[in-house]
Amino acid sequence: MTERVLTGDRVTGKLHLGHYVGSLKNRVALQQQYETYILLADVQALTTHFDKPDLIRSHLREVALDYLAVGIDPDRATIFVQSMIPEIAELTVLFSMFVTVNALRHNPTIKSESKNSGLDDMYYGFLGYPVSQTADIAFCKATIVPVGDDQLPHLEQSRKIVRRFNELYKPVLVEPRALISETPRLVGTDGKGKMSKSLGNAVALDSSTEEIAFKIQRATTDPGHPEVCPIYAYHQAFRLDEAPEIREGCEKGTMGCSACKGQIALALEQLIEPMRERRSYYAARPDTVDDILISGTRRARSIARDTMGEVREAMSLNYFD
Amino acid sequence: MTERVLTGDRVTGKLHLGHYVGSLKNRVALQQQYETYILLADVQALTTHFDKPDLIRSHLREVALDYLAVGIDPDRATIFVQSMIPEIAELTVLFSMFVTVNALRHNPTIKSESKNSGLDDMYYGFLGYPVSQTADIAFCKATIVPVGDDQLPHLEQSRKIVRRFNELYKPVLVEPRALISETPRLVGTDGKGKMSKSLGNAVALDSSTEEIAFKIQRATTDPGHPEVCPIYAYHQAFRLDEAPEIREGCEKGTMGCSACKGQIALALEQLIEPMRERRSYYAARPDTVDDILISGTRRARSIARDTMGEVREAMSLNYFD
Repeated sequence: MTERVLTGDRVTGKLHLGHYVGSLKNRVALQQQYETYILLADVQALTTHFDKPDLIRSHLREVALDYLAVGIDPDRATIFVQSMIPEIAELTVLFSMFVTVNALRHNPTIKSESKNSGLDDMYYGFLGYPVSQTADIAFCKATIVPVGDDQLPHLEQSRKIVRRFNELYKPVLVEPRALISETPRLVGTDGKGKMSKSLGNAVALDSSTEEIAFKIQRATTDPGHPEVCPIYAYHQAFRLDEAPEIREGCEKGTMGCSACKGQIALALEQLIEPMRERRSYYAARPDTVDDILISGTRRARSIARDTMGEVREAMSLNYFD
Repeated sequence: MTERVLTGDRVTGKLHLGHYVGSLKNRVALQQQYETYILLADVQALTTHFDKPDLIRSHLREVALDYLAVGIDPDRATIFVQSMIPEIAELTVLFSMFVTVNALRHNPTIKSESKNSGLDDMYYGFLGYPVSQTADIAFCKATIVPVGDDQLPHLEQSRKIVRRFNELYKPVLVEPRALISETPRLVGTDGKGKMSKSLGNAVALDSSTEEIAFKIQRATTDPGHPEVCPIYAYHQAFRLDEAPEIREGCEKGTMGCSACKGQIALALEQLIEPMRERRSYYAARPDTVDDILISGTRRARSIARDTMGEVREAMSLNYFD
């Protein structure tokens, strides 16, 4: 059986360096080796942004541009739109019949959210996030799902739902396995927590030279303490070979913050410059981007139809020939 | 705007006289006046019968035969299969984004179930029943939903979800109104509670003459107390004009149980005999029944596609032309 990777992003905002380090870079490598499906999760974006549909709409194409910019190759990877695959909704509804509220509450994300605001105030669709994620994975029979350590329990839950389906009906669905990425989360420029657009501490993947310089110049530093300095974290993430030298210079006081920042700003510019170029190529060709999404969605849909046919047959819901 | 009725049944068992009195008789009348859509709810049957898919499969056609037997006219009413309308699943998923767990817990059915077994042990799909019912009503823009008094809170919840959608996005969905049926629930032949197949106190709509006679002969009576006697309840339900005479005879002791039972058995035979005939006509023509369901589902699907197009547009999920 061909190995198939499923991955994707909720389209709630443009992507930044944190996404690049945490997943995008890995995807660019994965597409060389595996059949890769990348989900533009607009329906799941609604779980938190149901009252901002226009934001989701505009971000859908921005995230697609981010993918193309970092080097996702539409001839190798299939980029597709979640809301255009009705079979994902159908599987979500079918799986929901045999998953208890209790099982969902044990999902780490749901658990922490229900601690914050209580289960009762949670939206029903948000509570069902693990079910809907399972549908994303199951419809295309993904064998591999790249996850960070923290997402392992999510994937374990999906594996359980798939196993339960296969036991209850027929073993037509594929239990996915985790491809664990060891990349730690990238710290934000304020050094306070992970990089996040909403915290204003992110470097967007479409940053101009000036924006990179400005963000780095304004970044918090901790002179002499590289292990807690965000700039040193960036050296580790983007200039691993040179990081020991930076560390030594910082600790010994022979390398000032300004020079250190200059080096990382240059490295980021070298990383982002080709992204910017590819992005502007595609941004100038919206029809090409649409064609990529349409044909990717069509490809995903065709697999979804096949899987749904097998699911109907397994559940005896195939009434007519 | 054309008035459109939506009604239907979960396909968990063959229908009986309780269904006839409570809804089927009314539907036969409604189809003369309104565009009538009748849902074979196989997906909702899964909320309680997910581990018995073959039972659902066989009951789907039995319930369809029951419909045709009582006089649902496939040229007037559209009988369709829920699982074959993916748009119902899509709407269920979309509505679930803005309905809280708390709102669902206030639904009377969910409330009583969560009192019995606790919210945590409830299946996620069962908890979402009110959302899925709203999708049934919304996809076909039903303006009228026939309900018993006890189901009014369910319909009120659907109206709320539709209103919320229309406020959040665009007013493309139709708020249905209740058509309240005042028919009380028909008591079972054991006189202990409502007629129900699982309690063994039901008279099926496909009963033979002998089965009717046997069920009535075995039925509990309360000589001299018509108001608590199930047989008298049947006189009221099926021989309203003659009921006062029966009541008087029973109370005065001039009419014995045996004669009283004989009269109702005859009346039921007269009611069921033409049903039996229509049923055997269609039972001998399974391809005709399949054609009715296929063409009904196709008709419903076409409306579903139109509605889903409007919903996508309203939610800005219509990315491509």
